Amino acid sequence: MPSEGFVTSITRQSEDFPGWYNDVVRKAELADYSPVRGCMVIRPYGFAIWESMQGELDRHIKRTGHSNVYFPLFVPKSLLEKEAEHVEGFNPQVAWVTHAGGKKLEEWLAIRPTSEAIIAETVKDWIQSYRDLPLLMNSWNNVVRWELRTRLFLRTTEFLWQEAHTFHATREEAEEEVATGLDCYDRVARDWLAIPVIKGRKTDSEKFAGAEYTWCIEAMMRDGKALQAGTSHMLGQNFARAAGIEFLDRDNVRKPPYGTSWGFSTRMVGAVIMTHGDDSGLVLPPNLAPVQVVIVPIFRKDEERAAVAEAIDRFTAALASTPEGSAVRIKVDWTEESPGFKYNHWELRGVPFRLEIGPRDVAAGQGMLVRRVDRSKEAVPLEKLAAELPARLTAYQAELLKRAQDFRDSNTYQVDAYQQLKDGLDEKAGFYMAHWCGSEKCEKQASDEISATIRCIPFDSPKEKGKCVVCGAESGQRVVFARAY
Amino acid sequence: MPSEGFVTSITRQSEDFPGWYNDVVRKAELADYSPVRGCMVIRPYGFAIWESMQGELDRHIKRTGHSNVYFPLFVPKSLLEKEAEHVEGFNPQVAWVTHAGGKKLEEWLAIRPTSEAIIAETVKDWIQSYRDLPLLMNSWNNVVRWELRTRLFLRTTEFLWQEAHTFHATREEAEEEVATGLDCYDRVARDWLAIPVIKGRKTDSEKFAGAEYTWCIEAMMRDGKALQAGTSHMLGQNFARAAGIEFLDRDNVRKPPYGTSWGFSTRMVGAVIMTHGDDSGLVLPPNLAPVQVVIVPIFRKDEERAAVAEAIDRFTAALASTPEGSAVRIKVDWTEESPGFKYNHWELRGVPFRLEIGPRDVAAGQGMLVRRVDRSKEAVPLEKLAAELPARLTAYQAELLKRAQDFRDSNTYQVDAYQQLKDGLDEKAGFYMAHWCGSEKCEKQASDEISATIRCIPFDSPKEKGKCVVCGAESGQRVVFARAY
Repeated sequence: MPSEGFVTSITRQSEDFPGWYNDVVRKAELADYSPVRGCMVIRPYGFAIWESMQGELDRHIKRTGHSNVYFPLFVPKSLLEKEAEHVEGFNPQVAWVTHAGGKKLEEWLAIRPTSEAIIAETVKDWIQSYRDLPLLMNSWNNVVRWELRTRLFLRTTEFLWQEAHTFHATREEAEEEVATGLDCYDRVARDWLAIPVIKGRKTDSEKFAGAEYTWCIEAMMRDGKALQAGTSHMLGQNFARAAGIEFLDRDNVRKPPYGTSWGFSTRMVGAVIMTHGDDSGLVLPPNLAPVQVVIVPIFRKDEERAAVAEAIDRFTAALASTPEGSAVRIKVDWTEESPGFKYNHWELRGVPFRLEIGPRDVAAGQGMLVRRVDRSKEAVPLEKLAAELPARLTAYQAELLKRAQDFRDSNTYQVDAYQQLKDGLDEKAGFYMAHWCGSEKCEKQASDEISATIRCIPFDSPKEKGKCVVCGAESGQRVVFARAY
Repeated sequence: MPSEGFVTSITRQSEDFPGWYNDVVRKAELADYSPVRGCMVIRPYGFAIWESMQGELDRHIKRTGHSNVYFPLFVPKSLLEKEAEHVEGFNPQVAWVTHAGGKKLEEWLAIRPTSEAIIAETVKDWIQSYRDLPLLMNSWNNVVRWELRTRLFLRTTEFLWQEAHTFHATREEAEEEVATGLDCYDRVARDWLAIPVIKGRKTDSEKFAGAEYTWCIEAMMRDGKALQAGTSHMLGQNFARAAGIEFLDRDNVRKPPYGTSWGFSTRMVGAVIMTHGDDSGLVLPPNLAPVQVVIVPIFRKDEERAAVAEAIDRFTAALASTPEGSAVRIKVDWTEESPGFKYNHWELRGVPFRLEIGPRDVAAGQGMLVRRVDRSKEAVPLEKLAAELPARLTAYQAELLKRAQDFRDSNTYQVDAYQQLKDGLDEKAGFYMAHWCGSEKCEKQASDEISATIRCIPFDSPKEKGKCVVCGAESGQRVVFARAY
């Protein structure tokens, strides 16, 4: 076991945000570097968090009519090259298998950086008629993109994700599907991860390689930087044409179907850390938390221990007597460490509530409830707490979302001049809502000169006349400029 | 939609078992070949079956104290080579990444054929003291083993599996863990897949490359051949020593921990098909079945349709009124195909019960219940059926297990002479219980000459004196000889 000193030695957020992030990931034992360059090991606590968001997203994916499937890890070189923009976008990041089974391969195999190419080629045989459409599939898998600079969860050479792939008879239907995918992400982010996001459209230069357009959700981290938190792509007929997929439509004409794809990855574990965490470590929303309540027994003598244990048993039994209560994920920490060590240990891991129960509490029939997010302490009668705990967790979940929303609002600025945008970003990271004429040239200039990227063109920003913050040309809407992960 | 003729054109089991298998897998849309040699695509229905067994095994894995984790897909060549037997066993089947990110790699990376090597190297830093043990981990992932001859689900170049990896302070504890792993497999096979298995120990020549010994469960397919259905390995200190893992024990001495690993893969979908299937296709145990009951409405006129629909609604509402009933997975097939087409369609897919409801049934307040396994038909009052359905599914599950057990028993023979073993196997595949002296020479002779491999040395076979069926030397126990997948 690491010593108490080790556990508490986290870099402060205000001093060095990336250092803080790395400390939290490693000291809360979420993930670690591996012997393979750029690849991470996801440890039990980190994986439990991923499994929770995975489970929730999987429910939304199935609720909206998609079936899970599995496609090969390998994409033959000739298939990856069929869609021109796609190969241009992904080729530089591909890892290639060239030898296998003791022989040199005749054709190199890419480790999938994403599966559009292999899927289009495969479903060619499945899609014959309009009655075979829509084809709504999803796959949970691993992909590899050779990255120069990696950061645990945020950008790793191999990562885990879900990629949905769908085919439709009409453009309209495919466009609705792009929205369905984004809506699944929006709900998981908001309701499960307590992360408020902005839904919008990526600029053309930021869209997926091979897509007609890309929609996204963008979140703000506690250092004011933006994180792309899920993308949904309208592929049009691009991949279908490249693979030669055609179906016989109701009008007896053979047509290529319209495709979409959308993905959400382990990077979202990083998003949770950076949206809610503080100088003591993780702060987890209850829906996501592997442990929602940790009970720390406090005692010195054996008879105290027995009395405390009895009180804890009574409490957990009372909790388990209702359906909502029995669903609460409780951990009683009976390890031999000191109470102080345990407080740090579970604070670092972001457990929403800590319940301290000592001999005096037992006598009073109460426990000391400490909330992770604000460290507020409250002596609560245990019987009352057993009844109220599910509702308190629900309220805490809502509070975290509200807190993140308030943080984002207070770090969102409207700017109308280029210098103002530059000075703003230099002084304080955040979302800078500014007008943009729509040209790639202005976008590139802002990116090159002041590292301000256009995160998205938000769906809900009001139509408003203005002038491009870079060139001064006409603009009808503000977009989100920010520095980003 | 395929025509009715297409659906029913399955090769007969008795004529060509492998042809039958392939037809079932492809026509029930479980899996398909892919554009990548030896790799398969798992389609929605096949993946739903995999997800069900995966979910059940995951519950057992967690129940026994293991946490899910993720380790990298890549194993650097130097790490794979650290354990001598391991590399010798796996090297010929490895796929190698040699180029990535536009450059030639300095060190080749193996796509994991299994993860012992990368895990041992990683956990070196995590295991410092006896207090860090046991370390009980599991990973659901994909592995690649370059196979010359592949068959959907049974042997594919890439496959999905779970690999558990554990580390322990003592040999005893590790040996108990090997049993825990095998017990999880035994329970899933028996209780979920309705597959009776023989638990036993692999001979040394069949053990995992790098293990001290391997335990396994072996199942009999309906063609009498054996299928290895899960293995659990005692790794001893082999991988720990190779990676240099040492922990400080209670006695203040630094020691390498003992390791185990155990795996269960998508090949088990193939095992289900070949354990229960018949000439009409799949036969699924209810616990595993994505659809447990398919309701086929029968009607000609619109007013008949309305009456049938109403009866179905009443039935499903009655079913949903109890907790057990609401858990039943029902599908009402309202597609425009003929009833005959639907019968074939769902029989091919192995749905346990079919409920036909037509106008005359509505008048009589009943439905026609058809059981997939024996096609028995019974007119049952719908109200009664709603109450009884959960119990009927439970009974059907037990029946399938019993049926498979009976089949295995009636295809298991005791033989005491080599010629008898050869003639037996040539005449009728099955499990041949015969004495074996324990020598690798005799094992190899039987394998080379008559394709009879020793599937395992069963744990529950009685101690009994006899003579080796190959060489005539003393033996204390019969082993399972069989031809195998």
